[in-house]
Amino acid sequence: MSSKRKVAILGATGAIGQRFIQLLQGHPWFTIEVLAASERSAGKKYKDACNWTMECNLPKELAEMNVADATVESVEKAGNVDLVFSALPGDLAGPVESEFAALYPVFSKASAHRMEKDVPLLIPEVNPEHAALIPIQKKQRGWKGFITTDPNCSTIQMAMTLKPLMKFGLSQVMVTTMQALSGAGYPGVPSLDIIDNIVPYIGKEEDKMESESQKILGAFDGCKVQNADFVISSSCNRVHVKDGHLESIFVKLDSCPSVEEVEEAFRKFRGEPQQLKLPSAPENPIVVRKEANRPQPRFDRDEGKGMSVVVGRIRKDPIMTMKYMCLGHNTIRGGSGAGILSAELMVAKGLA
Amino acid sequence: MSSKRKVAILGATGAIGQRFIQLLQGHPWFTIEVLAASERSAGKKYKDACNWTMECNLPKELAEMNVADATVESVEKAGNVDLVFSALPGDLAGPVESEFAALYPVFSKASAHRMEKDVPLLIPEVNPEHAALIPIQKKQRGWKGFITTDPNCSTIQMAMTLKPLMKFGLSQVMVTTMQALSGAGYPGVPSLDIIDNIVPYIGKEEDKMESESQKILGAFDGCKVQNADFVISSSCNRVHVKDGHLESIFVKLDSCPSVEEVEEAFRKFRGEPQQLKLPSAPENPIVVRKEANRPQPRFDRDEGKGMSVVVGRIRKDPIMTMKYMCLGHNTIRGGSGAGILSAELMVAKGLA
Amino acid sequence: MSSKRKVAILGATGAIGQRFIQLLQGHPWFTIEVLAASERSAGKKYKDACNWTMECNLPKELAEMNVADATVESVEKAGNVDLVFSALPGDLAGPVESEFAALYPVFSKASAHRMEKDVPLLIPEVNPEHAALIPIQKKQRGWKGFITTDPNCSTIQMAMTLKPLMKFGLSQVMVTTMQALSGAGYPGVPSLDIIDNIVPYIGKEEDKMESESQKILGAFDGCKVQNADFVISSSCNRVHVKDGHLESIFVKLDSCPSVEEVEEAFRKFRGEPQQLKLPSAPENPIVVRKEANRPQPRFDRDEGKGMSVVVGRIRKDPIMTMKYMCLGHNTIRGGSGAGILSAELMVAKGLA
Amino acid sequence: MSSKRKVAILGATGAIGQRFIQLLQGHPWFTIEVLAASERSAGKKYKDACNWTMECNLPKELAEMNVADATVESVEKAGNVDLVFSALPGDLAGPVESEFAALYPVFSKASAHRMEKDVPLLIPEVNPEHAALIPIQKKQRGWKGFITTDPNCSTIQMAMTLKPLMKFGLSQVMVTTMQALSGAGYPGVPSLDIIDNIVPYIGKEEDKMESESQKILGAFDGCKVQNADFVISSSCNRVHVKDGHLESIFVKLDSCPSVEEVEEAFRKFRGEPQQLKLPSAPENPIVVRKEANRPQPRFDRDEGKGMSVVVGRIRKDPIMTMKYMCLGHNTIRGGSGAGILSAELMVAKGLA
Repeated sequence: MSSKRKVAILGATGAIGQRFIQLLQGHPWFTIEVLAASERSAGKKYKDACNWTMECNLPKELAEMNVADATVESVEKAGNVDLVFSALPGDLAGPVESEFAALYPVFSKASAHRMEKDVPLLIPEVNPEHAALIPIQKKQRGWKGFITTDPNCSTIQMAMTLKPLMKFGLSQVMVTTMQALSGAGYPGVPSLDIIDNIVPYIGKEEDKMESESQKILGAFDGCKVQNADFVISSSCNRVHVKDGHLESIFVKLDSCPSVEEVEEAFRKFRGEPQQLKLPSAPENPIVVRKEANRPQPRFDRDEGKGMSVVVGRIRKDPIMTMKYMCLGHNTIRGGSGAGILSAELMVAKGLA
Repeated sequence: MSSKRKVAILGATGAIGQRFIQLLQGHPWFTIEVLAASERSAGKKYKDACNWTMECNLPKELAEMNVADATVESVEKAGNVDLVFSALPGDLAGPVESEFAALYPVFSKASAHRMEKDVPLLIPEVNPEHAALIPIQKKQRGWKGFITTDPNCSTIQMAMTLKPLMKFGLSQVMVTTMQALSGAGYPGVPSLDIIDNIVPYIGKEEDKMESESQKILGAFDGCKVQNADFVISSSCNRVHVKDGHLESIFVKLDSCPSVEEVEEAFRKFRGEPQQLKLPSAPENPIVVRKEANRPQPRFDRDEGKGMSVVVGRIRKDPIMTMKYMCLGHNTIRGGSGAGILSAELMVAKGLA
Repeated sequence: MSSKRKVAILGATGAIGQRFIQLLQGHPWFTIEVLAASERSAGKKYKDACNWTMECNLPKELAEMNVADATVESVEKAGNVDLVFSALPGDLAGPVESEFAALYPVFSKASAHRMEKDVPLLIPEVNPEHAALIPIQKKQRGWKGFITTDPNCSTIQMAMTLKPLMKFGLSQVMVTTMQALSGAGYPGVPSLDIIDNIVPYIGKEEDKMESESQKILGAFDGCKVQNADFVISSSCNRVHVKDGHLESIFVKLDSCPSVEEVEEAFRKFRGEPQQLKLPSAPENPIVVRKEANRPQPRFDRDEGKGMSVVVGRIRKDPIMTMKYMCLGHNTIRGGSGAGILSAELMVAKGLA
Repeated sequence: MSSKRKVAILGATGAIGQRFIQLLQGHPWFTIEVLAASERSAGKKYKDACNWTMECNLPKELAEMNVADATVESVEKAGNVDLVFSALPGDLAGPVESEFAALYPVFSKASAHRMEKDVPLLIPEVNPEHAALIPIQKKQRGWKGFITTDPNCSTIQMAMTLKPLMKFGLSQVMVTTMQALSGAGYPGVPSLDIIDNIVPYIGKEEDKMESESQKILGAFDGCKVQNADFVISSSCNRVHVKDGHLESIFVKLDSCPSVEEVEEAFRKFRGEPQQLKLPSAPENPIVVRKEANRPQPRFDRDEGKGMSVVVGRIRKDPIMTMKYMCLGHNTIRGGSGAGILSAELMVAKGLA
């Protein structure tokens, strides 16, 4: 690559936006050119516009950067950008991202465009072939840029483990999640709601896990993605953990593999990010733990710098075929890290 | 009842033993006559032998009571008792409970005798007819007393909700639990293991949930209990909650009832404790919450003074038939309250 | 008392308002007639206007009650009231409470009027003689009603323990607080701010503790309150506890009493609420614990139904004279319970 | 340095021992040669002898290492060592450390020898001149090696902030601590003791803070250390935080400096480790935060890789002179990192 791509972050003041900033520090391909947010923040210095909640210190040069309004006009005035990461809240994301996508590659963590037919819902290890929707999308919409989206956090980690199981004839998936507080953003979950407690409900989360996973694991037929045809049911809970979603997954696999075969499928799973040696790609997309009591959020969420999914307790299930626990870092692999890996893939493929 | 039954509590210094003491304060039928524990505690004043961890204050007269050794000889020397509650740890419970059962009715929270063929595994609302094993047991073993056992905490609350579903043709149960810290006793789970974390493993818990529930819901055929023939699979987790196990349950019901029919079955469920108006019986064994985000441990665990099970989020399941969340207070309904209710039932039936 | 006083609760939907509702259930002297809140809630049913966060269930008849606007006109239309409890947020409380006080006795948990010269800042056990400000206030302001205020939560519990120390010549007080989450109201502290963390700052709290305590412990000279002349310094922290503020207090006592004398002063402390046997008065305003590791929030906050303050670890201090730990339930003794006890005192004295 | 020093870790299986292992990974001067522990662990592979609780993975070559018995004979059989880190529990540490010190330099985190007159109680930035006790100790005891000790965790961070205040005439210190769970080791604090709670007592901690700080800040007169003559009083609490002790400190400074002068004294504070550029020395031993709500454990404990102490909220005190909050990572700066820094200092000075 001749020089670094200049990026704008939309929604830069929120929790996902902050994580983008953290993960892009020292990135070999991308450099932050513009921080943009809603009108309320625009015009302020970033340090004044945002309530920085990352455990690391806010880099000084970004602290002093002026926040642009999240409009094309305002962002272009603030700098020349090559591509755009969007961490906009759901209700704003739709039209703003479209405005940018007319001109720039847009990598979105928002749910607004995820289920549109010509928009890839991408996990680079799982369905890189869905990137073929991009030229279709550009043509249909008459855009110079495009939008590609990352799935919901709880979906990403599950889908990564379902992909290597597809060859065993995956027909049913049941999942109960125990999701971390950071998944709700900031200020997010009030402490009085969650101290000594669990909230057995996360708005729209179950629908997202069910519909998104069928699109992600679906086949691209040259024109569009055909949904995968397994049936899925989920039950989502918020628990008292800072980062790291833990999922209890039960799967029906028609070819009835052994525990060892499933373990091996997980362990050997590699995707294009590993082949292309993308900067954010973990060496092992899925790490298998053999201890009886792993994975655990605090101990395993940082595996592969937060980009690996960790599975454990793989065992036979008397009703379905197999059950296992699955852990992922929801704001890295399930959040900003997902967007960055997607952008790296597009750059490596010459699409961005 | 002419006068109160005098009871001994074995294992009185542990977490379950302490809860027995708390729940028996002011009980209309039972009065604490002897507190017994292992040799290490025997001879000490109760206040010195135990690390009192209940939120209420330790009653003064009990604080000063001398702890007896958990042997028949030592207990009989300490007082005249009519029946025995056992909260002994699993490894001690087996032989000690048998020794007492030769002479006294023994109500055990330990797992030692649960799966023996002539020992009832009792939930008074669910399978009171299993009490018919008691005369069989006494005869077979030549005992003047008997043993009856309470199931494991996570099993009790699940089994209470499965019972009213039996009429719909229950054939499969999948459950993922999120279990409270108090379930592990004291000192139990180290704080460093659970702060900002989940432990996706509880030793033997999954086996217990699976085997015990089939016995509890089995039919008594006049001589023995025939296991119920549904298939069950569980996945058990320890979470950062003080009291109250929350369970995500998926059930296959052959007659495909509607959500309303399931709700009504839960709501109308009553058992012998309600008919007999036993002192510890909750008015509603199962309470149905309609809010999208209930039941929650901190808000619902004390329903019915901790003796009700609270369900919510009853909804259609695309793979099984129905899914719902189930909450119970693990040290009351799932712990000492279970033993006391069993004892009340036996007294009311004239068996103790 | 011939019949129950009818009360209105202003700010009924907030955390303190909800606690008022809980504590007034079954109150022998007061009955809830009107629930009032800001315009946003007015006109709705209470159950729809409020996010009920008490662990007990919301009483059904109140759930269905229409919320009035927090204005005299709207409240009077909603019912005939005898007195008013105000749990309004600080910025609204000032003018609204004055409007009501022109006509009704107002018992306020807000800080707006606390430091006004003719407004009592009342702790019934500590400074009931400050109630003599009420006729002065009524005359000066030409009001039929009046305002009396409760101190800040962290101040109340400290001031209760300082009162019996006054006789030893209290000249200096240093306090570091560890305050519960419920003190910040709802939604209050974001869970991401406090999981695995402490926030060493609570806005204006240190100022309040310092200025309010000097007024509370000041002497009424027939016309006005002369501030007590001890010096006080505080440092306030928010910690991961649901209810119950714990305070580490160091005091300089000029007459150098022994630990035993201080303990006895705490233990024997009684006030008018105890003499008058007010319904909410705890038998012991201050409970002394002798264990090395008490008081603790979860174990001691409900002492005296949350109306007692619990002290422990009383020991000599090498710099000041004495140090001790002090615990109080911040939303009962430090919150709505304080307002109710004040109202009971005024009723008993014939002032309301 | 020609080659790396080979070290043995005594008490390698405990929480401090594990942290030593973690911090010594990739250390430029030291390499782990022997892992030793109590008889119970000796002979096992390290991975089987220890319950690894660090968030990072256990290095593979150490996992397979055999654990030696913590005796000179057993350690010497296991390898050639140049120096010894001791993380032995208090009751074992005394005689075992003496046995090793007869032959090797011993860097001890245990309290056994801390208060002995010829044993340095060392904080490299604070009192490196106390290392002059080592030749005295060797001569008096006839040892080829020596013992030097690190202070208690809560003392280290406080003493580091007191050192630059000495020049203002420090005469009194009052401190209330809020200490992390990891300070109690593993299993340490039971989760049931600390969920939704604070424990206002840590055995012997107050005594240690008081006596150790006077020795650390005392002057070495050529033969021995004369205790510093300020008066100190502490009150210690255990709170629900994983790592990072937070301390509320009040100091009397006879020369009455301004807030700015105190800030500058903290900020400019440097010691020998900084001058000698020791590998584990943080650039800034004390970091000053200006935000109203800092330092906070989760956000500030990793400052300087856990080796900096972070202060904030420096403000005038109406009774003493100044008050401030002080945070340190209790198992790095207050634990194994302290031992390693001491060893680096001794190596750099040619004493080890």
